[in-house]
Amino acid sequence: MTDAADTYFPYEDLVALLERIFLRNGVSKHNASILAENCAGCERDGSLSHGIFRMPGYVSSLNSAWVDGKAVPEVEDVGPAFVRVDAKGGFTQPAFFAARPLLIEKVKQNGVAVLAIRRSHHFSALWPDVEPFADEGLVALTAVNSMACVVPHGGRKAVFGTNPIAFASPREGSAPFVFDQASSAIAHGDVQIAARSGHELKTGMGVDRDGQPTNDPKAILDGGALLPFGGHKGNSIALMVEILSAALTGGYFSGEFDWSGHKGAQTPFTGQFFVVIDPERGGNNVFAHRVSEICDLVLEAGQDRLPGDRRHLTRAKAALDGIPLSAKNHETLRAMAEA
Amino acid sequence: MTDAADTYFPYEDLVALLERIFLRNGVSKHNASILAENCAGCERDGSLSHGIFRMPGYVSSLNSAWVDGKAVPEVEDVGPAFVRVDAKGGFTQPAFFAARPLLIEKVKQNGVAVLAIRRSHHFSALWPDVEPFADEGLVALTAVNSMACVVPHGGRKAVFGTNPIAFASPREGSAPFVFDQASSAIAHGDVQIAARSGHELKTGMGVDRDGQPTNDPKAILDGGALLPFGGHKGNSIALMVEILSAALTGGYFSGEFDWSGHKGAQTPFTGQFFVVIDPERGGNNVFAHRVSEICDLVLEAGQDRLPGDRRHLTRAKAALDGIPLSAKNHETLRAMAEA
Repeated sequence: MTDAADTYFPYEDLVALLERIFLRNGVSKHNASILAENCAGCERDGSLSHGIFRMPGYVSSLNSAWVDGKAVPEVEDVGPAFVRVDAKGGFTQPAFFAARPLLIEKVKQNGVAVLAIRRSHHFSALWPDVEPFADEGLVALTAVNSMACVVPHGGRKAVFGTNPIAFASPREGSAPFVFDQASSAIAHGDVQIAARSGHELKTGMGVDRDGQPTNDPKAILDGGALLPFGGHKGNSIALMVEILSAALTGGYFSGEFDWSGHKGAQTPFTGQFFVVIDPERGGNNVFAHRVSEICDLVLEAGQDRLPGDRRHLTRAKAALDGIPLSAKNHETLRAMAEA
Repeated sequence: MTDAADTYFPYEDLVALLERIFLRNGVSKHNASILAENCAGCERDGSLSHGIFRMPGYVSSLNSAWVDGKAVPEVEDVGPAFVRVDAKGGFTQPAFFAARPLLIEKVKQNGVAVLAIRRSHHFSALWPDVEPFADEGLVALTAVNSMACVVPHGGRKAVFGTNPIAFASPREGSAPFVFDQASSAIAHGDVQIAARSGHELKTGMGVDRDGQPTNDPKAILDGGALLPFGGHKGNSIALMVEILSAALTGGYFSGEFDWSGHKGAQTPFTGQFFVVIDPERGGNNVFAHRVSEICDLVLEAGQDRLPGDRRHLTRAKAALDGIPLSAKNHETLRAMAEA
């Protein structure tokens, strides 16, 4: 779903269309609204591997009864600065939204708080989870494990998921500083997109089913696996993500859940970890200004752009022109909404 | 200081020798004891780039009056789960030890707490700061910024320090899982060791004074700079470290402090960030067991060893045999202690 634009959709209209698709496929009204805004937001910001490209996967997973679209998460207040949520086999975002107000209250009261989500399916980008904290003046770090598709550094068998981490910080005078990066050398969605479009990958992205290096995205998807980014250092980050997102939350590791009885299932059944900090605690009232200073230094040193900046440009453009959609994708979505 | 062993020192004897060196060079008794244990512990565990190799740098920095060896840190209790420390221009470790009991109390009360240290000089490895938390059943993540010697990804001017992060987690039936890794492609201490021993570096470690890639450690040290590990992803982690360790703590960025009036100064005057979590909060009493499971999966998948494991073997060996020292290094240390 990356064809040229034939039409431009207002954000609200795309949300409404995606919401109809979720409702048609067994998602509760409340959860459908959260998921549709999340997915439409990714498409709007140019995060295309987590935008409407994902809708067939959402639908397929729902229809396989692997994920419960009507799940009602259970929020547990387990300490002055610690919140747990049992997502009850539903998508992560409704669990996150159910816990978010309590989490923010705890951060403001204590200076920092942890949110640990378990038994949850995260099928989207991570930046939508952290960026709004930065808009409220808070610093947020999150990690989610996924499904085993990454071999450990020097290993032969996939153990880790793509295991992204995302970080957001307020930044004076600009949109927040936000990054969202897989601890694999490449995101799984980008391998899928390359496979569909027939493009080769750069060297060092993955291995084939025999554990040999390959540049063919189809060989990676067909029994092969990804590699961690940055050698043993990215590998350690991938392992830290398993520890924080699964061991600490009480969720499953990336290689642990069994979806063999759910043909068509695509969503990882794992956990998500957040730590959110109030940077003003301790009287440091120049924090956002200081962040803008270090970001400016990086750009002055010659880095072409900061992560997230292109997304904000794309979002601003979509606010003016609407979200670009090809006629084919529009038709596909309309058919899914009416199926 | 990496010559063959001529003598084997008991840990306590090496601590006493290093303590005498610190005392001779204007460090208070209390601070000297902390620094000597830290440095001897690095040497004992085979972290040679942060062991006795660093002693001339400690002494040179103290004698330049750049760092205050007698500094008395000021601990501020700024929230139920937030501690700040002003290190008052001294070394970081005494500031950390001054705040540690309050930090642990807050973690146990609340489930998580932050420690923000500023105006501090960190000249050692990071793993000694986090590993003891894991020994007490806690999960710890720390980051410290240093001195500008790393160019941003695609940039030409050094902005970041080597900006390491370290993580420690309890692990049932084994020593804790601990990693300590620079967000540069290589640690600065390892570049110094390569320069002294005349070894070339692997490709992708750094640039020369003209911003061109080089394998010569001397060209990197002589006006050149290091590169972040893992391309733009390691770069984002380096920037996050500046935000957490300097902007959030109220410390200096890696390129910001001015030591030009202190000839011989080698220690970065920055900040350090910690977040420490009680994984048992929320009734997750199988946490350490789960960590051992994922660590075992990684080893079974073919990864040769986990970060930190070699250190624990080296430590166990030193407990039996003593810490290996060359006659030359022993003589150098003895001369420093009597100078």
